[in-house]
Amino acid sequence: MIGTLGPAAERRCRESFARQAFVLHLGGAVEALAPGRAALRLPFRAELAQQHGFFHAGALTTLADTAAGYAAFTLMPEGAAVLTVEFKMNLLRPGRGAAAVARAEVLKPGRTLMAVRADVFCIAEGGAEELAATMLATMMCVRNRPDVPPG
Amino acid sequence: MIGTLGPAAERRCRESFARQAFVLHLGGAVEALAPGRAALRLPFRAELAQQHGFFHAGALTTLADTAAGYAAFTLMPEGAAVLTVEFKMNLLRPGRGAAAVARAEVLKPGRTLMAVRADVFCIAEGGAEELAATMLATMMCVRNRPDVPPG
Amino acid sequence: MIGTLGPAAERRCRESFARQAFVLHLGGAVEALAPGRAALRLPFRAELAQQHGFFHAGALTTLADTAAGYAAFTLMPEGAAVLTVEFKMNLLRPGRGAAAVARAEVLKPGRTLMAVRADVFCIAEGGAEELAATMLATMMCVRNRPDVPPG
Amino acid sequence: MIGTLGPAAERRCRESFARQAFVLHLGGAVEALAPGRAALRLPFRAELAQQHGFFHAGALTTLADTAAGYAAFTLMPEGAAVLTVEFKMNLLRPGRGAAAVARAEVLKPGRTLMAVRADVFCIAEGGAEELAATMLATMMCVRNRPDVPPG
Repeated sequence: MIGTLGPAAERRCRESFARQAFVLHLGGAVEALAPGRAALRLPFRAELAQQHGFFHAGALTTLADTAAGYAAFTLMPEGAAVLTVEFKMNLLRPGRGAAAVARAEVLKPGRTLMAVRADVFCIAEGGAEELAATMLATMMCVRNRPDVPPG
Repeated sequence: MIGTLGPAAERRCRESFARQAFVLHLGGAVEALAPGRAALRLPFRAELAQQHGFFHAGALTTLADTAAGYAAFTLMPEGAAVLTVEFKMNLLRPGRGAAAVARAEVLKPGRTLMAVRADVFCIAEGGAEELAATMLATMMCVRNRPDVPPG
Repeated sequence: MIGTLGPAAERRCRESFARQAFVLHLGGAVEALAPGRAALRLPFRAELAQQHGFFHAGALTTLADTAAGYAAFTLMPEGAAVLTVEFKMNLLRPGRGAAAVARAEVLKPGRTLMAVRADVFCIAEGGAEELAATMLATMMCVRNRPDVPPG
Repeated sequence: MIGTLGPAAERRCRESFARQAFVLHLGGAVEALAPGRAALRLPFRAELAQQHGFFHAGALTTLADTAAGYAAFTLMPEGAAVLTVEFKMNLLRPGRGAAAVARAEVLKPGRTLMAVRADVFCIAEGGAEELAATMLATMMCVRNRPDVPPG
């Protein structure tokens, strides 16, 4: 049982995501949110490719990092911001497919730090999924720093 | 003394970089190449920001990963391709500034694997640099796989 | 279905483990082997503690790295050796308990490289398990290098 | 200029190190401390070897993690404890030599978190050094938790 995110937390996450200029620019979208979990989807486009025509590791990392951040953010209190402390990414297979989906899960919630795992799957035209990369990340909860852009 | 890249290797790197659709789409450019070293620059744009208006970790990671890849590629033989096996990135400070520069250096060249360090600096309007992130990566040399896009 | 390791591979792994001076010195033992998987156990002793009396991160890392190595080794051909390329370890909770168990699983087998995940659980006196740490590692298969000590 | 550690901080670090049962059991010793830096030395012994007779990655990781922890600890206030959040280690060369030395340096000090780099060198009989491994770690400052063993 995964549980359902309350409406206030769901809104908080979606409003924050709507300010994610870079991920939105790449074409990323929220696919699912649950307590301690987030899934994001990124359709393939030629601009997201590396020199062999597959998803660039940087695009998959952006997706995984953002999914990991929102998985942690679902568990954070109102008025807190999430910052990425660090992550490690293993690229397992060429990122080949019509879309990539990052599914993140908090392994250990903490008041200040959360360890999060994110798996990135590439989805073929027919829907078959293949694990393309996996991330292990540390997220930080910063209190009293509203999650709004400066200025 | 760092040494100078031979003209054939320089051309091989620059031609490969010219096929890096994602990095080019973000606005990245080669600043310098030397044997075992590469520096890339990325001017700030609003599309590269996260929810607080700084460089998104994914954009800085893309820059660092690409710099690390080309640092390794300078040492690889003609006809080889470079693949990212994995990397770890620590975000040290908010990625704030007019541009970001990633400077990568091969720590240990090997026939098959190369360990590479990449530091990402954010550059203020006046030119002051601040270390924003650091990456430790593993690159793989794939022989007999020309570095050209498929199809 | 996990599958069972053939007798030759089982013997190859156990003979190699019997030469692991450091892990044996710490008190580690093989708990289970299966294709692409390995579990090792390490009973707590005062010599394995850090300054607060819990398992030192280095002892848990040794266990996880070794489990990850043997998970990969189960899939390698006769006459090959396994080398750790790199790993990343997140320490999630104090390593407190009567024993630690590392369970490793190959995420992506490859001819040369294998990505492996290893979870380290601490086991209380009554048998309750708690996830204490998690590792993401890259192992390398070195052919034609028999897994024997030099000299 | 690196600076010199004040006598109170020096004593605080050395007293904490004297409670590091695991590192002491392996034979590790403090070689140098400075603000934001620490160097530890570990003489080779047969019990520290892996299956090929070199330093086990776990022994080198223990040394690097501990050096990284004390590099951070030198910058922490009286009454604080240091905890390892995570680290990533790249094994660059076989850990071969009469001793290993880990030299750690804080890359970014913070009130709560510190990013630390640690390089591990293996020292041959004649004194020649070789970079055997490099670590990138995150350390946490825990206040109001005296650095003493429980019980």
